[in-house]
Amino acid sequence: MANVVRFGVSLEPELLKQFDRLLTARRYTNRSEAVRDLIRDALIEEDWRVGNRQAAGVVTLLYDHASMELAQRLTHLQHDQHAQIVSSLHVHLDHHNCLEVLVMRGRAHEIRTAADRLIGTRGVKHGKLTMTATGRAL
Amino acid sequence: MANVVRFGVSLEPELLKQFDRLLTARRYTNRSEAVRDLIRDALIEEDWRVGNRQAAGVVTLLYDHASMELAQRLTHLQHDQHAQIVSSLHVHLDHHNCLEVLVMRGRAHEIRTAADRLIGTRGVKHGKLTMTATGRAL
Amino acid sequence: MANVVRFGVSLEPELLKQFDRLLTARRYTNRSEAVRDLIRDALIEEDWRVGNRQAAGVVTLLYDHASMELAQRLTHLQHDQHAQIVSSLHVHLDHHNCLEVLVMRGRAHEIRTAADRLIGTRGVKHGKLTMTATGRAL
Amino acid sequence: MANVVRFGVSLEPELLKQFDRLLTARRYTNRSEAVRDLIRDALIEEDWRVGNRQAAGVVTLLYDHASMELAQRLTHLQHDQHAQIVSSLHVHLDHHNCLEVLVMRGRAHEIRTAADRLIGTRGVKHGKLTMTATGRAL
Repeated sequence: MANVVRFGVSLEPELLKQFDRLLTARRYTNRSEAVRDLIRDALIEEDWRVGNRQAAGVVTLLYDHASMELAQRLTHLQHDQHAQIVSSLHVHLDHHNCLEVLVMRGRAHEIRTAADRLIGTRGVKHGKLTMTATGRAL
Repeated sequence: MANVVRFGVSLEPELLKQFDRLLTARRYTNRSEAVRDLIRDALIEEDWRVGNRQAAGVVTLLYDHASMELAQRLTHLQHDQHAQIVSSLHVHLDHHNCLEVLVMRGRAHEIRTAADRLIGTRGVKHGKLTMTATGRAL
Repeated sequence: MANVVRFGVSLEPELLKQFDRLLTARRYTNRSEAVRDLIRDALIEEDWRVGNRQAAGVVTLLYDHASMELAQRLTHLQHDQHAQIVSSLHVHLDHHNCLEVLVMRGRAHEIRTAADRLIGTRGVKHGKLTMTATGRAL
Repeated sequence: MANVVRFGVSLEPELLKQFDRLLTARRYTNRSEAVRDLIRDALIEEDWRVGNRQAAGVVTLLYDHASMELAQRLTHLQHDQHAQIVSSLHVHLDHHNCLEVLVMRGRAHEIRTAADRLIGTRGVKHGKLTMTATGRAL
């Protein structure tokens, strides 16, 4: 961080003691880092609530290897103008099960719509959208 | 707060600007208050993850007025040694639907078990457990 | 349920076995009840995502007894035209801590805005919005 | 699905109508598929709640490209006996920001501990754990 500002936080000693205990458990090396993480979490949650801001999302799909439908929907999605698949990762969990992880960019609500369609695909056993950010303003 | 300590948070100016914008939207009057809220949120989340610490929970049950089974399970629960119903609120939403809100105390995992049983009761259309704290150490 | 329709669900025997195990743990008495609950959960989640549909919400506020600001904001909120507080419950947890539970009605996004303001009030240590429904269409 | 069993679900016509509307919005092609997804969601949520069952998780980390600490912690984690990183994906979002997506296997609570440590690393701006399953029993 080349350019840094500071502000002070006042709180009860007992609350600070508990916060420090949590930081130790999570292996944080300083309080500023932990507070920045809490702030960024709150900002990203807000971005996804508002919906039309630029965001990044990770779609995790557990699916049956034999299913052909997911491959087709993924192909269609590539041609979709809105949310864009930046990159993807494929893991063979066992003879039957695969995990497909897609990194997407676009407006929050567009990523959500694309994720819903993918999760609803026949053969997908479990799907989740992880909402994150492009990091530009964080 | 009779007794207060302070610590400093360093962060990028752009991140602070966005945080201030969020505080305005949520009507926070100062940053310390907002950071304390974020810290308490994280601590309460951790308490419920660990499971055996003292906690408070609010169980919200949307149910069909005609259902008798919920009344019975609530009575049984009162005699349960573990999680304790401190207080409850009943709202008639319309001719058919009621909302029952129960404030519970006990260990986090005991409250969760009691909530699961109540939510699973026939006649309960929707149920949620809200995890909060007794406030002692916050 | 005076008026009932039926549909069939086909699934792998192993998945059904695990589902039955979960129902036992949660004390469900039959599968239909459990599936209806899952369907209602999904519908309510969708209502809150869409935002402008009629909904019910429960706002849980853990706060310091000495705080006067919450009382003022609650009074202001009563005069607000949008989300409406139907009923409320107050619990004295100990000498310092109170739990205020508010049942609200209105459009999902209006309830959310009101909840955000209440949670941001000075003196409120922890706040959560529980999203539920009026039950009319469930 | 070579081997399939069936069970019937009874519900109010209005609830079924709404469910069908949701399925259309999410592009489901049949009700069984949607109910199976709801059941699997509930089972995976339960597995993560219990904590000591075999699971899969996806850790998403948004971080500053210049940070060296994450690389070190990832290396240490590889030598950790417990949760295992199966595969990972790295995306350059812009000149400063990267997204690292890790697919992990192990017991639910071990994956969670590893995820907490990674998210707490200096330089990581945002981190999330997505809880999924190995799919064996689904």
